[in-house]
Amino acid sequence: MIIAIDAAGGEYAPHEIVRGAIKAAQEYKVDVALVGNKAMLHVLAGKHLRKLNITITEASQVIDFHEHPVDAVRLKPRSSIVVGINLVKDGKADAFVSAGNTGAVLFAALLNLGRIEGVERPALGTIINLIPSAPVFLIDAGANADCRPKHLAQFAQLGSIYATHVLGINTPRIGLLSNGTEDTKGNRLIQETHKLLRNSGLKFIGNIEGIDIARGTADVIITDGLTGNIVLKTIEGLGDSLVRLRQQLGHSVDDARHFRGRELLVDVGLGALVKGMDYREYGGACLLGVKGNVIVSHGRSQGKAIKSAIGLAKRTVEQGICQLIKEIKYD
Amino acid sequence: MIIAIDAAGGEYAPHEIVRGAIKAAQEYKVDVALVGNKAMLHVLAGKHLRKLNITITEASQVIDFHEHPVDAVRLKPRSSIVVGINLVKDGKADAFVSAGNTGAVLFAALLNLGRIEGVERPALGTIINLIPSAPVFLIDAGANADCRPKHLAQFAQLGSIYATHVLGINTPRIGLLSNGTEDTKGNRLIQETHKLLRNSGLKFIGNIEGIDIARGTADVIITDGLTGNIVLKTIEGLGDSLVRLRQQLGHSVDDARHFRGRELLVDVGLGALVKGMDYREYGGACLLGVKGNVIVSHGRSQGKAIKSAIGLAKRTVEQGICQLIKEIKYD
Repeated sequence: MIIAIDAAGGEYAPHEIVRGAIKAAQEYKVDVALVGNKAMLHVLAGKHLRKLNITITEASQVIDFHEHPVDAVRLKPRSSIVVGINLVKDGKADAFVSAGNTGAVLFAALLNLGRIEGVERPALGTIINLIPSAPVFLIDAGANADCRPKHLAQFAQLGSIYATHVLGINTPRIGLLSNGTEDTKGNRLIQETHKLLRNSGLKFIGNIEGIDIARGTADVIITDGLTGNIVLKTIEGLGDSLVRLRQQLGHSVDDARHFRGRELLVDVGLGALVKGMDYREYGGACLLGVKGNVIVSHGRSQGKAIKSAIGLAKRTVEQGICQLIKEIKYD
Repeated sequence: MIIAIDAAGGEYAPHEIVRGAIKAAQEYKVDVALVGNKAMLHVLAGKHLRKLNITITEASQVIDFHEHPVDAVRLKPRSSIVVGINLVKDGKADAFVSAGNTGAVLFAALLNLGRIEGVERPALGTIINLIPSAPVFLIDAGANADCRPKHLAQFAQLGSIYATHVLGINTPRIGLLSNGTEDTKGNRLIQETHKLLRNSGLKFIGNIEGIDIARGTADVIITDGLTGNIVLKTIEGLGDSLVRLRQQLGHSVDDARHFRGRELLVDVGLGALVKGMDYREYGGACLLGVKGNVIVSHGRSQGKAIKSAIGLAKRTVEQGICQLIKEIKYD
């Protein structure tokens, strides 16, 4: 299995990307194709190029975070994003992982890989891990800001496949994120989607509220990409606040009292909660509904997050998610 | 100043409502009008009826949580919600506080108090207190699931008034909640609202992301009622997880190590963060844009939350928010 990785994407590229890729190659026994500036990547990957199965594919252009996705993809055919997506298209890689401009990755994937027949709107699904041992899958995490009911109903089909095969949940419980659990709650989009999900044949448990995310009421949370993104980043912001608290403790390890406190935080599960709120742990979001495996990582990804993203890509490939999505009968 | 309080509303009514009302009457020196079953409230308020300025107004009907708001308000004119709203309408109370059926409170307020001229959609605004000493005001917290750009632009006008006069922030920074900070991000609603806010004369700092909520990037966060409600309840859910951790520590006070850890958590600010994520602290959301002061409390409100809500009602009345909203020139 070959995982292509955008070595030029993200705040910490290329150093941290290469670091994560090397760790993943060691730990997961996957072949990694680094995509970016060949000369620089040769220096960074160094001795690992021979020992591990790491290759380098030249990409002379870089798409910046602030570039307009559509324009950038069209104007930069030799960018690491476009080159990486094309490795998947041409069958030279089984998946592509990028921490670069999310919009550009999505657009390049739609343009060059194409949608799976029947899927109207490919969507980003991401794992939320607030309860240890009970991961939750949220879809859409940000690909589609404007959605119609049919799109959300399809997200439920995609999410159900992913939760079953990657998270190992039999007949996952599908919850529709709303402002109340009653069937009549929500805006028009939610109300119409609710009716479609009632008749979907999926294990639809009805509307859920924001409070249910940390409770694990549903295995798959259905929402539009705008709300999904806002919810994930709200959790991330609170996670940052907790990480700062933990760091304050960490800085005082020479003080016995603080050291004990730190131990204690781990004991009582704050460690697990912080871990669950930390995007580095789950690595990235999976773009579902295109003809190929694409993982979008957080722009702030460092080595650990990139390694996790490659692990997620590996699981996605192993489970044959693309093929399973092709086999769904869409209404 | 007389604050009317729905003694029949919420999961812990009437006991905890009466307890909170008594505490508020003692602490804030306000007169409280309990609205509910007269005989029962006489027993519960007991000796306090004479010592403090607590009165009782009979309401023989109760609107349940699961009743349809519009039907319930129309069919139950003697419910605590309708009677309480009418005390404000008739000038017999300066504000009404309820932890009951939110939809019913909103509908009764719209029907019996009416909208302030020019305000198209009254909205719920609530204080988020994740950073000690830097409260943030979020509007709409759940009154309007479906919004148009003009509605959101008006929420910014309402929120700006509230943040200035109740939170004491000069020219508050207005942020529009979106899935990215760039002007082009968001769905159609966000993009159109963005343009209106650019020309609003308010201190609009542009789009903000979910991660900005805990960072305090904006003083006033503008969002539709669906997203606002989901965000608040996501925070509440994570707060519940932290409260459970703190309680685990609390239960082990006889163990010296745990006691130290608990002290430590307070030292490093976890106490403040948990407090900030706890709805009991801010007490409720203020309905802005109707001809009267109405505070909607959390359905899970116990004495402490009800006391806080009455405190919030007092500040809202003192600052003359209703009058200030009447004086705004709406586009």
